[in-house]
Amino acid sequence: MEVCPAEFVAFSNRLADASGDAIRPYFRQPIPVDTKPDNSPVTIADRAGEAAIRDLISRHYPEHGIIGEEMGRENEDAEFVWVLDPIDGTTSFITGRPLFGTLIALTHGGQSVLGIIDQPISGERWLGALGQDSLLNNKKISTRDCAALNQAALDSTSLEYFNEIELAAFEAIEKVVAHRRYGTDCYAYGLLAAGFVDLVIEATLNFWDFAALVPVIEGAGGFISDWNGDTLGPDSDGRIVAAGDRRIHKAALEILNAA
Amino acid sequence: MEVCPAEFVAFSNRLADASGDAIRPYFRQPIPVDTKPDNSPVTIADRAGEAAIRDLISRHYPEHGIIGEEMGRENEDAEFVWVLDPIDGTTSFITGRPLFGTLIALTHGGQSVLGIIDQPISGERWLGALGQDSLLNNKKISTRDCAALNQAALDSTSLEYFNEIELAAFEAIEKVVAHRRYGTDCYAYGLLAAGFVDLVIEATLNFWDFAALVPVIEGAGGFISDWNGDTLGPDSDGRIVAAGDRRIHKAALEILNAA
Repeated sequence: MEVCPAEFVAFSNRLADASGDAIRPYFRQPIPVDTKPDNSPVTIADRAGEAAIRDLISRHYPEHGIIGEEMGRENEDAEFVWVLDPIDGTTSFITGRPLFGTLIALTHGGQSVLGIIDQPISGERWLGALGQDSLLNNKKISTRDCAALNQAALDSTSLEYFNEIELAAFEAIEKVVAHRRYGTDCYAYGLLAAGFVDLVIEATLNFWDFAALVPVIEGAGGFISDWNGDTLGPDSDGRIVAAGDRRIHKAALEILNAA
Repeated sequence: MEVCPAEFVAFSNRLADASGDAIRPYFRQPIPVDTKPDNSPVTIADRAGEAAIRDLISRHYPEHGIIGEEMGRENEDAEFVWVLDPIDGTTSFITGRPLFGTLIALTHGGQSVLGIIDQPISGERWLGALGQDSLLNNKKISTRDCAALNQAALDSTSLEYFNEIELAAFEAIEKVVAHRRYGTDCYAYGLLAAGFVDLVIEATLNFWDFAALVPVIEGAGGFISDWNGDTLGPDSDGRIVAAGDRRIHKAALEILNAA
């Protein structure tokens, strides 16, 4: 696909409106927290957010496929497949931090052609679509220049997601950067796309964790790949490196590649 | 002092209004970041925030002392001393995260009698005053019950602030808690006071980093001390443990005490 149809862009905004409306009432409320088989937390808010999105897709594009973190896969061989994470950063959500995000991606043949990162509490929405400039609340955004790792602000959600070899590679970079901060999940990629963070390095991500990030970052002039420098897709291994400046991306890859 | 005079509570809100007005214009703007002798970052926003507060104090309470992170100490043997950190979480500030906070404390004989945690972007303001219920945006808040460490949500800004022995003690707790999250600076203590987080453990904090937290947490029914369980004051060693429930505070102290 050359560009992403305007119809899908408008529809994805409706999806994010609906998930935000479903999630917002549960924020900072005393709701039960369940634990999934992978030991990650989930709540009624995750399920309500995903249900609201799936309902709209089924009604408007019944021929499209859906892959969602909480409610499974349907028709995933369709030409267009929506890839959803209703609350990326459930730990942030349940501890009252307005930094979680709803991730909505539209993929075409495994390639992300549209991505939304929506923060329904602060009211921040990042939108990226193939062939278009990325937007934060409808304003064009760009990544910033950063010539070398020792000038970079680095972000990662938590060191607990790295295995021992990955952690050694991460720490080699973490030691030389100018600033480092943790705990931001998808919000970090939004900050990178808007030019406030230079580098995000993570591992153990699922397709629904990164499918929406790709168009947002690339449409802002940034770079995102796996640790080998390869394009991200449904079969990626979940090790992600995103950078606002090609020089930083290359420098990080040189270190991560060895891991 | 039995209670904190209403006059000081009202005045502290004016101080937070003024610092917020001074800081807000610099958020997510491309401003230079300087590095202080302790290697921490500082910007014009930190200085502008502290200057705005100091100006008001000098005009209204010239007999009061001031200890501020960015602009030093004056008249610090006065009966009342204001203890200020205009931007706690400068790394969050410079990377566009609305989780930094302005910390304003009033101390009387070294004891914090009033504390504000102000987040000028999200518009959240925590206020605690001796003998009064703590407030978040003028609504009474309370910490939540948490019977045991394995049910707790734990917060800490970054592992980089612990030395090797402290890190071992922290990790012994971090391993058993239900949820853990990083990167929140003073905002974590606000979340604890409001009942969304159960435990915050940190080290290497300065007096201005924790003076304002004490009345906020105690007025919400929580507990905050150094790692020996002693009351915090100007001479504390900067190792902090705060908990919403006395049982968690005690359980954490038993592990931290050995460090």
